[in-house]
Amino acid sequence: MPQDIFDKIMTLAKRRGFIYPSFEIYGGVAGFYDYGPLGAQLKNNIENLWRKYYLLKDNCIEINTPTVTLYEVLKASGHTNEFTDLTVDCKKCKQSFKLEGLVEKGDPEKEAKEGKVKCPNCGEILKNPYPVNLMFSTKIGVGNTRDAFLRPETAQGIFTNFHLLYRYAREKLPFGVVQIGKGYRNEISPRQGIIRQREFNMAEAEVFFDPKDKSHPDFDSVKNKTLFLFDNKKEMKFSVEKAVKQGVVNNQALAYYMCLTQEFLLDVGIDPEKFRFRKHGDDELAHYATECWDAELYSERFGWVECVGIADRSAYDIKSHIESSGNDMYALRKFDEPKTVNVKKVVADMGKLGPLFKNKAGKIKDLLEKIDVKKDKEIILNVDGEKIKIPTDCYKIVETEEKIMGERFVPHVIEPSYGIDRILYMILEHSYSEGKKSDEEYRILKLNPVVAPVKVGIFPLIGDKKLINIAKKLDSDLRTSGISTYYDEGGTIGRRYARMDEIGTPFCITVDHDSINDNAVTVRDRDTTKQDRVKIKEVLSFIMAKISS
Amino acid sequence: MPQDIFDKIMTLAKRRGFIYPSFEIYGGVAGFYDYGPLGAQLKNNIENLWRKYYLLKDNCIEINTPTVTLYEVLKASGHTNEFTDLTVDCKKCKQSFKLEGLVEKGDPEKEAKEGKVKCPNCGEILKNPYPVNLMFSTKIGVGNTRDAFLRPETAQGIFTNFHLLYRYAREKLPFGVVQIGKGYRNEISPRQGIIRQREFNMAEAEVFFDPKDKSHPDFDSVKNKTLFLFDNKKEMKFSVEKAVKQGVVNNQALAYYMCLTQEFLLDVGIDPEKFRFRKHGDDELAHYATECWDAELYSERFGWVECVGIADRSAYDIKSHIESSGNDMYALRKFDEPKTVNVKKVVADMGKLGPLFKNKAGKIKDLLEKIDVKKDKEIILNVDGEKIKIPTDCYKIVETEEKIMGERFVPHVIEPSYGIDRILYMILEHSYSEGKKSDEEYRILKLNPVVAPVKVGIFPLIGDKKLINIAKKLDSDLRTSGISTYYDEGGTIGRRYARMDEIGTPFCITVDHDSINDNAVTVRDRDTTKQDRVKIKEVLSFIMAKISS
Repeated sequence: MPQDIFDKIMTLAKRRGFIYPSFEIYGGVAGFYDYGPLGAQLKNNIENLWRKYYLLKDNCIEINTPTVTLYEVLKASGHTNEFTDLTVDCKKCKQSFKLEGLVEKGDPEKEAKEGKVKCPNCGEILKNPYPVNLMFSTKIGVGNTRDAFLRPETAQGIFTNFHLLYRYAREKLPFGVVQIGKGYRNEISPRQGIIRQREFNMAEAEVFFDPKDKSHPDFDSVKNKTLFLFDNKKEMKFSVEKAVKQGVVNNQALAYYMCLTQEFLLDVGIDPEKFRFRKHGDDELAHYATECWDAELYSERFGWVECVGIADRSAYDIKSHIESSGNDMYALRKFDEPKTVNVKKVVADMGKLGPLFKNKAGKIKDLLEKIDVKKDKEIILNVDGEKIKIPTDCYKIVETEEKIMGERFVPHVIEPSYGIDRILYMILEHSYSEGKKSDEEYRILKLNPVVAPVKVGIFPLIGDKKLINIAKKLDSDLRTSGISTYYDEGGTIGRRYARMDEIGTPFCITVDHDSINDNAVTVRDRDTTKQDRVKIKEVLSFIMAKISS
Repeated sequence: MPQDIFDKIMTLAKRRGFIYPSFEIYGGVAGFYDYGPLGAQLKNNIENLWRKYYLLKDNCIEINTPTVTLYEVLKASGHTNEFTDLTVDCKKCKQSFKLEGLVEKGDPEKEAKEGKVKCPNCGEILKNPYPVNLMFSTKIGVGNTRDAFLRPETAQGIFTNFHLLYRYAREKLPFGVVQIGKGYRNEISPRQGIIRQREFNMAEAEVFFDPKDKSHPDFDSVKNKTLFLFDNKKEMKFSVEKAVKQGVVNNQALAYYMCLTQEFLLDVGIDPEKFRFRKHGDDELAHYATECWDAELYSERFGWVECVGIADRSAYDIKSHIESSGNDMYALRKFDEPKTVNVKKVVADMGKLGPLFKNKAGKIKDLLEKIDVKKDKEIILNVDGEKIKIPTDCYKIVETEEKIMGERFVPHVIEPSYGIDRILYMILEHSYSEGKKSDEEYRILKLNPVVAPVKVGIFPLIGDKKLINIAKKLDSDLRTSGISTYYDEGGTIGRRYARMDEIGTPFCITVDHDSINDNAVTVRDRDTTKQDRVKIKEVLSFIMAKISS
């Protein structure tokens, strides 16, 4: 069987140090991959460019929260109930499969009911699909343990800190918070290599908006750019502004982040011909989303693959955490001037609360006095996750006049969520080209210089001490300036070029005999194979100009 | 009770956005912390400086492997048996404690036996300590699950790839491989805040050496530098060279990485007076180490705290993985010229192996023919983690002459392992200073500019449109050049300086009325409070020169 492009890339990736299957010496496990030296560098470069887009261009802030996540958080967010896949077990060969992966067309549940789903391993008919939660579970501590999961997304670490981040942002909306890190999904039977991993790298932004105003402050700077859209039937091109005006995209905020995403993806080296935004149908929206656009990238092996999701999560998450935790996580829409209103307020009676609730009484008093009296007759508070009913003699309800500065509301969230590993794979696939040179297989990764793991290959033409010294000094000077290099004195220059082409190194520098006298070197461009003679002292700025994004 | 320095720092850290307790809205869990916007930036800066030391100065390569780690890996590495803490349960209040944390002096086990250990919660006598493994455990997949743990160190992800990384390094020793990422330790009862976390950030380097040659190629460049050592009795100063010559430090490699560590720590802003290397006694060495030096940093609350461990792990890990997996993970010590030797070789009989072992026969043949015949009479192979006994009629042992290029050996490993969170906390503690200014509490974090999360505060003197426009343009220009800024137009200049001093911002720029005419601004230095008038077009290079490491 001839290798397809995926096989070719994975072979190259392993041989040259981009990607290794994890735990291979122990037989490996599906859904886990290691990044070797070149893969890790490529990943760092992608993430750092992402930071430029989100931290410098869009002025978001970055935070960092644990991967181990308390049960209560994921219960509130809906993940303990909703983050599931329908699964079927094979009674004969004792394996389990994700139902969806076994059904090419039609409704998987219906197909299973009609006995049309077969075990891909032994051919047995598979029946009775049941939902399986996809989170890895673990326990914190010993003895009195707490239940926890590995996070399915980085987003919850941002939502649960909303009140603190809102203060950091000086209580002004919109503001965005990003997190880059690991996400986990205990897939039933992952069979798409690096595209479907059980532990993966994500970059997520949660941008908080006033639901009454989903405009973006920098919208004008992008409104004339063109979005590549696909409405599940045909491909369309729309200006950002027109997409919003015509209601194709619901609001400015969504459209702005779609545009930012498109620019980022083309900048890291995605082929524009293999890029589109596809809108989720109502039946495929995640439990928290009201609208979602996927940036899909095309793979010859996998077809169109979701690599970024840009979702309007509305008030879903923060509202859930307010309800579950009882914490004040509202934002304030300030009035132009304070208003005087009649309000009913709860006044706690510590003389009653104290003896009844002891060291929790203070916290209960605080919570009680924040309650919105209209809603509740019987007051049940959520104190550190515990529901406590408050006897009516523990408080009074009094009516007072109050000056209020504004009205409280739950902010909405626009979430661009990037799958870094999928993007990395697509970059490799879109950059891959092959052919023959002097009858030998020849492979080039045409990586964009800004993400290429090695920027410059440095070769002394021959093994002469003088040339080696010049080459090594240049190598060390470039590295000290933060440019990653690969020093190579082995084999013919042609073979050394080939080695660099195969890992996507955009420039190669050769030190030859003339270099001793003219203090210059030859710089060869990977894509044009054009050679420039450049003064050694100007090499750094020459390369810098070419690789800066 | 007056706040000690830890309380003060944690209060400031939460209020200003460095560190938040995780899951606080659900009552929190000991041993988990979030980095807020300033903390995450500080952490990124520390890690990026670390990369400069290890990737650029020492020319190591970086890889990235999963946190979820297969049982087989950690069984082989000894962690399933050895990574334990003695634990005692309180029968009365049902809590569990780490024994060591309850005993101030003396042998904890002896104290427990003699009934001298009391529950810190209810006073009950605690008896019968038992070892508890400190790894978080989880399961991969559903149905036929595989056991796994969250990695206790990043190192195993490097060791299990040694053969691939050795090839990447062109089979030359020494070479170093680093990994930066999360580590996990399911502590019994963590009670030291951010110093003892259950999920933490590590930066580790595994540097592979020929055991016969633990010299470091750059040793000469550091040999005259001074190491601050502590032999558990007295503090000593030794030159790096003298420390090795007198056998205080076992070899050049250890001493080189101690020196690199010391320079890195002083560079990120550790107080040299609060820094020392302490050698592990034989009774405190980890199960894999033959010698270990801890870089200890002094905290007013916690005393001397291990923040970096520099261990000679000898051949321990790779040897274990060779034995457990049956994989060839040897290095080759090349002879000057090939030697001809008599060798006994196993020649597999596929006619016998095929029917017996089916699709495993090929792998068994490969493993058989690699076996060192001297050692084994009965051959038991480890095939993908399964032990298989090979019947003697499946192979022949033949004696042949062979040309060999060199001798195989298991490389040794020198491991500098950094606890990033502990270093981050110590930087905050060592940088913290307080006093009064106009009768108000005044706090300054004297962070080294290279790690400071915000480099420049930018203020228009008053709310004049002209000044605001100049200030905002400067703010955006600096950010685009990768310098993190904080734009602030609220309150008096004094209050704005105070806000920046408190988060360690080294420079503040004020745009005033003169700026409109002289195109210059005032740059104020946090530590000297000296003010310079700088042309706007020179601000970038002025700041760059001050913050580059």
